[in-house]
Amino acid sequence: MKIIGNGVNAVDGITSIGKSIGIKKLGKLDFAVIYSDKPCTAAAIYTSNNVKGAPLLVTKNHLRNGKAQAIAANSGIANVCTGKKGMKDAEEMAKLAASELGIKKTDVLVASTGLIGAYLPMEKIRKGINGIKNELSKNSRVAEAIMTTDTKKKEIAVEVDNFRIGGIAKGSGMIHPNMATMLCFITTDAKISSPLLNKILKESANESFNMMCVDTDTSTSDMAVVMSTCMVKADLSKFKNALSFVCKELAKKIAADGEGATKLLIVKVKNALKKEDARKIAKSVISSNLVKCAFYGNDPNWGRLMCAIGNSGAHFIEQKVNVKIEGIKIVENGRAAALDIELLKRNMQKKELGITIDLGLGIQEATAYGCDMGTDYVKINALYRT
Amino acid sequence: MKIIGNGVNAVDGITSIGKSIGIKKLGKLDFAVIYSDKPCTAAAIYTSNNVKGAPLLVTKNHLRNGKAQAIAANSGIANVCTGKKGMKDAEEMAKLAASELGIKKTDVLVASTGLIGAYLPMEKIRKGINGIKNELSKNSRVAEAIMTTDTKKKEIAVEVDNFRIGGIAKGSGMIHPNMATMLCFITTDAKISSPLLNKILKESANESFNMMCVDTDTSTSDMAVVMSTCMVKADLSKFKNALSFVCKELAKKIAADGEGATKLLIVKVKNALKKEDARKIAKSVISSNLVKCAFYGNDPNWGRLMCAIGNSGAHFIEQKVNVKIEGIKIVENGRAAALDIELLKRNMQKKELGITIDLGLGIQEATAYGCDMGTDYVKINALYRT
Repeated sequence: MKIIGNGVNAVDGITSIGKSIGIKKLGKLDFAVIYSDKPCTAAAIYTSNNVKGAPLLVTKNHLRNGKAQAIAANSGIANVCTGKKGMKDAEEMAKLAASELGIKKTDVLVASTGLIGAYLPMEKIRKGINGIKNELSKNSRVAEAIMTTDTKKKEIAVEVDNFRIGGIAKGSGMIHPNMATMLCFITTDAKISSPLLNKILKESANESFNMMCVDTDTSTSDMAVVMSTCMVKADLSKFKNALSFVCKELAKKIAADGEGATKLLIVKVKNALKKEDARKIAKSVISSNLVKCAFYGNDPNWGRLMCAIGNSGAHFIEQKVNVKIEGIKIVENGRAAALDIELLKRNMQKKELGITIDLGLGIQEATAYGCDMGTDYVKINALYRT
Repeated sequence: MKIIGNGVNAVDGITSIGKSIGIKKLGKLDFAVIYSDKPCTAAAIYTSNNVKGAPLLVTKNHLRNGKAQAIAANSGIANVCTGKKGMKDAEEMAKLAASELGIKKTDVLVASTGLIGAYLPMEKIRKGINGIKNELSKNSRVAEAIMTTDTKKKEIAVEVDNFRIGGIAKGSGMIHPNMATMLCFITTDAKISSPLLNKILKESANESFNMMCVDTDTSTSDMAVVMSTCMVKADLSKFKNALSFVCKELAKKIAADGEGATKLLIVKVKNALKKEDARKIAKSVISSNLVKCAFYGNDPNWGRLMCAIGNSGAHFIEQKVNVKIEGIKIVENGRAAALDIELLKRNMQKKELGITIDLGLGIQEATAYGCDMGTDYVKINALYRT
């Protein structure tokens, strides 16, 4: 597997747009289109929040036949809690894009992200969609156009044998591992049927997006979509591996760019009796505010890790737990390990930290992706609307 | 019901101690004793965290007969994740206190709160317990001696007919509604059998401590204990009401003093179809970091409230939800309500805010107690150990 550039545009036949249409202030990019020159098989997963955004409902409806050819997305306003008008607006966004691109309305998927409870500024959307066909390019800033509080764009593309997978994602707050909770658009040319694509996407998301946490708030509007032009025959297990890699890399990028975060935390739980135990413990640790604050302060407060393990509801035996931070043992058989605390504190200042929790009970493992919690998390979210 | 002063000391026959024995720095109070001059019926509830502190296990064991006569507690170190030595230390603390007080070891309950993973400084404990019988008084600073990051002591006492209930509590971080998650000691003279006391304590905790959240981390060492001298005949339903009131008041005091908090939030969910729905929604809203940050910033970001409602897993109909903050309607039938936003922002600056969520489906209700999340929450917890 080779990592290549250009995100979703890496796939042959895919072009895109990232531009400003005036929803966000200061001319920031806020409108994105991803277009395939031929119809694609497609699959998507959606937020588990029971309040669901209008764009998500429209996309779900349009994807019932497992086919799509374009995605139109805006950032700045999420079009959630907007009732019938919100549904009408999302439908219109798909219809306008379809008409400009010369494809069927049901082959356009729509997505919106940003403030909940406000209506889309439809005049700006209409004007922005006008003439998009001519703006499509291989060198677009599409990954930037879906950002909200993100500070970095998130994209990746890989090549395996003769097929490619490209993906972009956004997400910085309201990120919690409970089905897909962010925007993620993935393209590929690997020939896969829509039901199979759906199955593989779910499996990949389960090990990546669903194991990721910034703040335990599951968003209302987020989804992950994969579209395939089906132009290249692909080995199924290689495709699975590659899609899983793409999803994990995007999950890491989202976690590392968590609101107010200063470092990426990767929590690996190993030697669990059951896979579900490993998942629960990894998610409980990565979700703990207190653990996140300790890592922000480079404070090796392992008691909080044990507390989070205890809160997971998973099976473990306290006296068998061993914990390492960046390879340095800090908990031995559930108790304080003898260690060079200054060395550990220095290691905790890295931008990416590995925490390994060995349960010593079986052979199952799981990994979760998250970040520390800095004072900026509060500052960003205390004044999000204003 | 009359609110009176003096916490646990309000009950006849109860005396106590709050003093410094050198576990915490700067001569801060860190050792507490509550003593009854006669044996009591007693009941307790404990943390649901699967990592449990040694003092909790010892207390559970000593309470098997439903009787107790004293509580010995320290703050600064929690004696959790300390293995056999931790158990031995907790046992010794009970034994030394019993010997000084001239009562049975199994009639002493022990509790510790503070840093997880460190051993109790037993030399200081032994010295501190020496001669306690002579230090017992009605005017002790017992409520202060159990504080950790608390900034205010939490105590209350009530008188109903001829019986009294007095309580003290501590708790500021690692506070999450999942069984009792803090230290709380309650005394009474109302004559109640131990099994009945247990039942009533559980019911009261379910509506108070279990509906309280500072940071969604359930602690390893916390418990609520009630001891009755049984000297006064009490009307059972009046006792229930009074104990419930005491627990709720202590829960409010803990929530208001949450780490880094600037205001108390009281979330009432009403007109739910089932009680459990109301509880889930109230807890989900009070636990949301994003909701808490918005209230810190006096930002009426109701989209986050709807998002938290959606994440609760409870039954509701988006279009029927009405939300008021301090009596001002902000969500009407699931959508933005017309309102005076500046008036609302001014109201949000109060030290105690009521949020009412009307589901419009049935007659069940529940109330949760929490606080906003300020930048100080992160500051306090980034450097807790150092």
